[in-house]
Amino acid sequence: MKEVTVGIDIGGTNTKYGVVDREGYVHHQGNIPTTQFESFQDYFDAMADALRECIQLLPSGIKIVGIGVGAANGNYYTGNIERATNLRWKGVLPLAKMFREEFGVPCVLTNDANAAAVGEMIYGNAKKMKDFVVITLGTGLGSGFVCSGVLLNGHHGIAGEVGHTSVNPNGRYCNCGKRGCLETYVSATGIKRTVYKLLADHLEPSELRGISFDNLNTKMITEAAHRGDVVAREAFEYTGRILGMKLAETVVHSDPEAIFLFGGLSMAGDLIFKPTQRHMEENLMPLFRGKIKILPSALTNQAAPILGASSLVWDYLDKREKSAIAY
Amino acid sequence: MKEVTVGIDIGGTNTKYGVVDREGYVHHQGNIPTTQFESFQDYFDAMADALRECIQLLPSGIKIVGIGVGAANGNYYTGNIERATNLRWKGVLPLAKMFREEFGVPCVLTNDANAAAVGEMIYGNAKKMKDFVVITLGTGLGSGFVCSGVLLNGHHGIAGEVGHTSVNPNGRYCNCGKRGCLETYVSATGIKRTVYKLLADHLEPSELRGISFDNLNTKMITEAAHRGDVVAREAFEYTGRILGMKLAETVVHSDPEAIFLFGGLSMAGDLIFKPTQRHMEENLMPLFRGKIKILPSALTNQAAPILGASSLVWDYLDKREKSAIAY
Repeated sequence: MKEVTVGIDIGGTNTKYGVVDREGYVHHQGNIPTTQFESFQDYFDAMADALRECIQLLPSGIKIVGIGVGAANGNYYTGNIERATNLRWKGVLPLAKMFREEFGVPCVLTNDANAAAVGEMIYGNAKKMKDFVVITLGTGLGSGFVCSGVLLNGHHGIAGEVGHTSVNPNGRYCNCGKRGCLETYVSATGIKRTVYKLLADHLEPSELRGISFDNLNTKMITEAAHRGDVVAREAFEYTGRILGMKLAETVVHSDPEAIFLFGGLSMAGDLIFKPTQRHMEENLMPLFRGKIKILPSALTNQAAPILGASSLVWDYLDKREKSAIAY
Repeated sequence: MKEVTVGIDIGGTNTKYGVVDREGYVHHQGNIPTTQFESFQDYFDAMADALRECIQLLPSGIKIVGIGVGAANGNYYTGNIERATNLRWKGVLPLAKMFREEFGVPCVLTNDANAAAVGEMIYGNAKKMKDFVVITLGTGLGSGFVCSGVLLNGHHGIAGEVGHTSVNPNGRYCNCGKRGCLETYVSATGIKRTVYKLLADHLEPSELRGISFDNLNTKMITEAAHRGDVVAREAFEYTGRILGMKLAETVVHSDPEAIFLFGGLSMAGDLIFKPTQRHMEENLMPLFRGKIKILPSALTNQAAPILGASSLVWDYLDKREKSAIAY
């Protein structure tokens, strides 16, 4: 009997799901719009229907051994999504318990950045690593820490919120209610804000002057930078400088072997990796210099969030005897 | 047969050692001057003699089961003291291996702040905690992280250097070679520097104006503050503000249940705890507010560093099957 797991990534707009084997091959995948459902129960019922359909399509001899869920504000200990600002359903959503009861297999839930970190360990470039960090660069900046081979959850199940360390206490407004958080500078949204700041401050011509804030995206900024656009290049330099400075602080906390950059902004390659590496080294306590690698995530395709979520189950099964948590 | 461990704390000036039981009772203790020995071998021989003498004084029925060592730049993985700037012997000192060979019992070595963290877990206020941080406020600022009940060592064995996160990249010169590190503001030396800065900037009369930098110490600043000295009080407020701001960043990394303050500066009580707590809360990502305790260490007497070092052995013995490292 071949074992597979289900991975579910719940984003504010779309929920992606798929059936994945131990080697990271995605057998089936699909998605449903997260925003479409008035009540959380309706959303859950639609997800359960979609999964049942997925399972029926599997050839015989394949068995689902668990469900992994990655979601913003997902809490590993409780299996709940707690007060997520990106979802329309308020309060505490006991999703892991509901999946467990519906499908009769273990369900492991955590936030999306933690899922990305476990995904890197199970399927990706961190297979042989015990201590590393994954930084997810999407709409915001998430982070997941693996220490001694174990996902760092913390006492309340909310460790790894590096996106909300401070760059400037009087800086840009953040969704969390504070000002100057790292993710307001370093994320898909952050680099857009930086482009607009640069366009405001400087006189240089730039192809980005013709694009509205709402229409601007990381891909456009990346392509403009590749064509030599001065503002776009400076935006990447600035973004990498701030990321590098703050990663130097993350390094002295947890002493990782490597830091992986994951998600949209990381696809810009050298444009973001080079300034990040340089400024991290410059700002590092000398004891750590030359020791820490900044690497691209191996999970780069559309299925990456599904892989991350599905990996939570393999990790749980591997560590079951050591009190890993599932519902 | 009652089991005891030996704890050795190697400071730049003095080496303290003692024989400690599982409950934290110190049976014998002593110290030798670290600075007195030209060669590292001479120092080791003197330590070995002192320990043998200590062991001979133990009543029958008591057995030494291991040796724990806390030392700046001590590396848990290698058992070496590596390039310590506070010792006269250069290079790599394989101390754990030497003790193991001399006494035939396991020897566990790590840096002094990590030893303090394990001490808090074994003997102190963190007995029931799985996720916490200890901040040691001595000549510098050290930190030790316990995550899921396990000391965080990192990939290179040097995790927890929070004293070298950045307060101001153009700030005070630090022994590490950088500028503006946290420990240049928050430590016994840091608050002295702050007092001198305040005396330079302001006109207020202060009893501290009569004391030279070399003679000034934390106790004098604390006593002056208790007597209402404006400069001394402002120095504590400023120190607590910076510590609180930076602890807010440490919290979002590791999500601890509590942060313990250990060592000289923490003895000032409310003078340091109140501004630290207030500024940490103000600077915290809202998700974490009201959740994290700042507490005094239970290890406050002269034997605290010996307790921390000796606790490393109990922790090692408790976790032996889980690949803890000893020589």
